[in-house]
Amino acid sequence: MDIYEKSLKMHEDNKGKIEMVSKVKVSNKDELSLAYSPGVAEPCRKIAEDEKNIYKYTSKGNMVAVITDGSAVLGLGNIGPKAALPVMEGKSILFKKFGNVDSFPLCLDTQDTEEIINICKNLTPSLGGINLEDISAPRCVEIERRLKEELDIPVFHDDQHGTAIIVTAALLNACKLTGKNPKELKVVVSGAGAAGSSIVRMIHNYGVGDIISVDIDGIINSKRENLDFLQKEILEITNKEDIEGDLSVAMKNADAFIGVSAGNIVSQEMIKSMNDNPFVFAMANPVPEIMPEEAKKAGARIIGTGRSDYPNQINNVLAFPGIFRGALDVGAKKINEEMKLAAAYAIASVIDEKELREDYIVPSPFDERVVQAVAEAVAQKAVETGVVREK
Amino acid sequence: MDIYEKSLKMHEDNKGKIEMVSKVKVSNKDELSLAYSPGVAEPCRKIAEDEKNIYKYTSKGNMVAVITDGSAVLGLGNIGPKAALPVMEGKSILFKKFGNVDSFPLCLDTQDTEEIINICKNLTPSLGGINLEDISAPRCVEIERRLKEELDIPVFHDDQHGTAIIVTAALLNACKLTGKNPKELKVVVSGAGAAGSSIVRMIHNYGVGDIISVDIDGIINSKRENLDFLQKEILEITNKEDIEGDLSVAMKNADAFIGVSAGNIVSQEMIKSMNDNPFVFAMANPVPEIMPEEAKKAGARIIGTGRSDYPNQINNVLAFPGIFRGALDVGAKKINEEMKLAAAYAIASVIDEKELREDYIVPSPFDERVVQAVAEAVAQKAVETGVVREK
Repeated sequence: MDIYEKSLKMHEDNKGKIEMVSKVKVSNKDELSLAYSPGVAEPCRKIAEDEKNIYKYTSKGNMVAVITDGSAVLGLGNIGPKAALPVMEGKSILFKKFGNVDSFPLCLDTQDTEEIINICKNLTPSLGGINLEDISAPRCVEIERRLKEELDIPVFHDDQHGTAIIVTAALLNACKLTGKNPKELKVVVSGAGAAGSSIVRMIHNYGVGDIISVDIDGIINSKRENLDFLQKEILEITNKEDIEGDLSVAMKNADAFIGVSAGNIVSQEMIKSMNDNPFVFAMANPVPEIMPEEAKKAGARIIGTGRSDYPNQINNVLAFPGIFRGALDVGAKKINEEMKLAAAYAIASVIDEKELREDYIVPSPFDERVVQAVAEAVAQKAVETGVVREK
Repeated sequence: MDIYEKSLKMHEDNKGKIEMVSKVKVSNKDELSLAYSPGVAEPCRKIAEDEKNIYKYTSKGNMVAVITDGSAVLGLGNIGPKAALPVMEGKSILFKKFGNVDSFPLCLDTQDTEEIINICKNLTPSLGGINLEDISAPRCVEIERRLKEELDIPVFHDDQHGTAIIVTAALLNACKLTGKNPKELKVVVSGAGAAGSSIVRMIHNYGVGDIISVDIDGIINSKRENLDFLQKEILEITNKEDIEGDLSVAMKNADAFIGVSAGNIVSQEMIKSMNDNPFVFAMANPVPEIMPEEAKKAGARIIGTGRSDYPNQINNVLAFPGIFRGALDVGAKKINEEMKLAAAYAIASVIDEKELREDYIVPSPFDERVVQAVAEAVAQKAVETGVVREK
């Protein structure tokens, strides 16, 4: 059986991947009267008196909804909310396994932006946080921004920021290994949707000054007439010289290529046109922008992909469990840019400089130091930036 | 510590009562690639091809949302969605404990009927069923009816039908024990909201011909001008002689009193005015319509309450876990009147005629025969009435 057949069998044998269990015993009348009527009236009354008590007496503070509309699922596209459910359940079990965060999937039967925002807002009383997932760009950005503005619980769209955080960590470690100064890099980001725009924003916030963003129509520049609001924002912080052209133009003299776009769009010639010791993070799934073997042959010094069968896997699971763990632990009301950048530093720092190798700039998801480092860094930054709720 | 202090401590020590766990292992790269990317793409594709496959490859078929707006919580009233959460978590753990049904609470930040309906409809892709809870009447009836009409998953408002089912079971067993014919009973139902109206409808559907419904303003009759739509419906199947008056008028010559109203509203005189061997089910919480000791003194033959510290507890947990278990097991798209009545028969039948006693007409929630009997009866009736989905 190949991996797909095995996965199918595993899903069928278990009838899905998640179950909800009780943290308390209800084996007799007495226990029942504590967990339910009449005893349960007391925590209800305490919360009615002061709603902050909800975090004391309920599971809210550790309960995240994984919400999608099924409009941009994995590499599968707009397959709808039902077909998206196996991914959302997967996300739920990763939350639990890596971050001890409880969660459940909600696949919404609407792809209307305003309706999604309204539903999410109305679901918040019992939620500790919202993880948006697999919603198409640029709608996902608007949905996340509005919810961040209007809600007092952390909202995080993993497809935007998860990849950006790991890529930033990888970039930092690649620089350590090669002696390049990250702020002086010229970086090409291929793909100007959810992930691409967040990568651009994050490395810009870090201090990378020279970024070129490219999409299927070429370099994002001021002459382009088909830019969406997200790409217009990207333009403000990229392509300072306002150059035009395709990916091959962008790649010349670049130090790093970051691909969140499509398979097989980077040639060996493009890699050869880059600066010395170039980094190539080709994360299109399942087929990368250029296969690692080819990139290597063409002179790439450090190579990462989204795949688990190559070294340096840029895997979102390195970030979101620790980010929510840290945010929930201190009662953060937001996950802000500073917290995300702190997560990137934390992931990078798990590998100390002596351990760093060309094929080991990103830690393994199973390295238990990762979630701890990320959670601590995120929690500390939440406190420092004053986004934690009153206790 | 009294029960309320103990309950508070238990809720605080455990930080609520529910957690979501994984049914599959993700301890290494291989397992991760089956449960998540890339393997998970295959069940997604299968569901995209044929949405019925969602029941085969996901947890949907066993996953129920416990949904409230916090408008009518226990005996606490409109305490809002946050303060309602401890009750909803309690419901979740009872679903799991008694019915092996997975569930999670959703406390909605709106009490607008149309908005609640719209949110519920949009949540259905990942849900196997919806348990509505603690929503005030008559809105709860409209919400449930609309959702039942429009959705293809079971929707059940426990406050309406849970009590009705157990009361009907209790009534049947009380008749067995006393030799009365249930269809010839005169029954007074005190309380004309969610539970009261469902009780009236259920015993009417069973065949009880003479029912008087009473609310705080007296007997429901055609001269009353303040009736809501629910009470107008009740009027059509109660009070054939269209009498007027208060509860004491209604109680004269009644065989059974069923109270889902308020504490201490029934006097010993009223009990004495009833027929021989009267049944008194006084379920107001925490203080019943008449205390069992007083009812006994006044001549009540069979007495039930909502309390766990008296015999014959009319406890909803006898019904909802088995009802959902049975409905989910056969893929029922609805929970119809026939299925609810089948559940009542099943609960009554758990106690065989030799075991029946005046203080044992309702089985214990911890009697494992209950959920099995209810689930089987409900499943069978779903198949018979043709409300199961295509496989």
